[in-house]
Amino acid sequence: MTARDADRLARVALSRLGEPGDPRITTLVAEMGAVRLHEALASERDLEGVLTDVAARLAANDPERDLATAARLGIRYVVPSDDEWPTQVGDLAHAGAVHERGGVPLGLWVRGPSRLDELNDSVAVVGSRSSTAYGEGAARALATEVAGHGVAVISGAAFGIDQAAHRGAVAGGGRTVAVLAGGVDRPYPVAHTRLLEHIAETGAVVSEVPPGSAPTRQRFLSRNRVIAALARGTVVVEAAHRSGALSTARWAERLSRTLMAVPGPVTSVQSTGTHGLIRAGAAQLVTSGPEVLELLGTSGSHLIVEPRSETRARDALRPRDARVLDAVPVSRAVPTESIARTAGLGLVAVQSALTLLLRDGFVERGPHGWRLGPQGRA
Amino acid sequence: MTARDADRLARVALSRLGEPGDPRITTLVAEMGAVRLHEALASERDLEGVLTDVAARLAANDPERDLATAARLGIRYVVPSDDEWPTQVGDLAHAGAVHERGGVPLGLWVRGPSRLDELNDSVAVVGSRSSTAYGEGAARALATEVAGHGVAVISGAAFGIDQAAHRGAVAGGGRTVAVLAGGVDRPYPVAHTRLLEHIAETGAVVSEVPPGSAPTRQRFLSRNRVIAALARGTVVVEAAHRSGALSTARWAERLSRTLMAVPGPVTSVQSTGTHGLIRAGAAQLVTSGPEVLELLGTSGSHLIVEPRSETRARDALRPRDARVLDAVPVSRAVPTESIARTAGLGLVAVQSALTLLLRDGFVERGPHGWRLGPQGRA
Repeated sequence: MTARDADRLARVALSRLGEPGDPRITTLVAEMGAVRLHEALASERDLEGVLTDVAARLAANDPERDLATAARLGIRYVVPSDDEWPTQVGDLAHAGAVHERGGVPLGLWVRGPSRLDELNDSVAVVGSRSSTAYGEGAARALATEVAGHGVAVISGAAFGIDQAAHRGAVAGGGRTVAVLAGGVDRPYPVAHTRLLEHIAETGAVVSEVPPGSAPTRQRFLSRNRVIAALARGTVVVEAAHRSGALSTARWAERLSRTLMAVPGPVTSVQSTGTHGLIRAGAAQLVTSGPEVLELLGTSGSHLIVEPRSETRARDALRPRDARVLDAVPVSRAVPTESIARTAGLGLVAVQSALTLLLRDGFVERGPHGWRLGPQGRA
Repeated sequence: MTARDADRLARVALSRLGEPGDPRITTLVAEMGAVRLHEALASERDLEGVLTDVAARLAANDPERDLATAARLGIRYVVPSDDEWPTQVGDLAHAGAVHERGGVPLGLWVRGPSRLDELNDSVAVVGSRSSTAYGEGAARALATEVAGHGVAVISGAAFGIDQAAHRGAVAGGGRTVAVLAGGVDRPYPVAHTRLLEHIAETGAVVSEVPPGSAPTRQRFLSRNRVIAALARGTVVVEAAHRSGALSTARWAERLSRTLMAVPGPVTSVQSTGTHGLIRAGAAQLVTSGPEVLELLGTSGSHLIVEPRSETRARDALRPRDARVLDAVPVSRAVPTESIARTAGLGLVAVQSALTLLLRDGFVERGPHGWRLGPQGRA
């Protein structure tokens, strides 16, 4: 068995031992390596020479069988020594306090053709499960736009914003990656079984916990850090005050990723979280895919095109004519002298300007003098 | 005639001569005073000894009659030497480039009981004329809240956001001030005649141009600088790409006033301007009156109350019980051993925690083991 195989097997075994992000395990793996930690724990005996509970559990593991079973289901286990390992996830080693759940995953279980090392150009689009139609529409539109530019959309396959983001990316003909809190062979929520099948066929379904694992609240929280770490930036589309999406946002901040938030109506509870992130200066306000691409700075091709001012006819006027036009009252008609006084120009100049403005519909002439015409009111 | 009376009359005469914010007049008044400028201009003759056009116009003026006529209409002319002069408007002397329209108004025509020197605690609420129902609702709610805290609401009496702001302040039982582009005796738009009458009876209607003057495009732009200068801060509620409200926002920036913007749906054209101000870092995002009051810092009584997290029942759990609860799968039922393994706790401790969690509805027991109960899913 090669050293890499041994390392992979040790990681499989350890990942069955503790919860994802358990600081005791991630710290020790970082210090002594997975193989040595596994050996040390597996041989641990108590005072009476009996295998400890941990050692007994490790002994009951069969990581080779785990890998073989996974392979039959089309699932691979990607570890840091693999070419496919997404190196940006290593940033988790330095994010968060030592005693907190966090740290670099032991490995990632993957189902689907997308390679994890090709997710550098990616953005997480996350938000409330109890989203509004507005939020889902915004998530879908945004995901369609960024995916159409070759940027992968990462989310958590949950109800609401997550599913809208995945579906938008699919509609944009781009890649999308779902990171689950349970095993990659366990579609959750069940209502998204077909969506997750599609993602597994075209993108990737990813999890830190072994196949067969059930999602728990703790695993959702740990999962959020993987989403934030995989992506170059995170967009929160809708989030109420205590939404789980805000935990993903906090991880994105800790990881110095670009954090973005979509605003919404101030009357919508589902936008209080995103408005809070913007007010606190934690997230930058984004309203569209091009703005997200610009902030990600993923490549020069994403330069945002500022919404062009509709060119107004009055913009084409010479300065003196514009000055005369500005002196024409909005509501009532006035004589030429009055316009000349207001404009601070001579009568002759004003008369000639008004003739031009009349021709182009900027002003109208009536019995009581000049007033704005249809072009002037535009 | 006292020096102050002479100064006031000179300012009335000069205000009939040029357009508001004419840099030639404001600069000269700042340098030599209104009386001397008036004298110099009024006596100016051309090479053949004839009065210049300017001098002829000044000679035709009758500022004493102007003041008397205004007084009969209940209109006063407030100048910098008056106690009522709002000194903060003096900031306009240093805002903007010398050649641009701008500068300190020669005086302000006022109709209404509110004293201009008592507008230190004030906020301008401005926005699109072609506003949405959402924007008008937001403007009204915000104005009601700040006016209810004794902060005057200043706006421009236009259709859309402006009128909603005034009406909101009235509904909040607070003061509101309308700054017009035309004379204070000329309700504009005409549809707001009754609203402006009400403001003139309870607050103040203000203008830089003399009574009888018609509003022009240039006067709307000059008026915007007066709104921004009078108020301690400006809130833009809705603004499309080229909305006039953005000119008020630019003046607020130049004057180092607090600039705020209300977000809205990213799908709304009327929110592109406010989102742009926030994205550019020019304005701070605000969603409610208390947030505006906090940013204005008008007094210690406006401290914002952060939306309290609804206390969740699970927040009251002891850490160990919460840890067990976090290990219970969201969807399917599992045996106690599985929960103990996931939680990393001993069987006995887990059993006792589950008993407690069962009693309080956090978990349920079924034929296949434990799963989340109604409280646990909340």
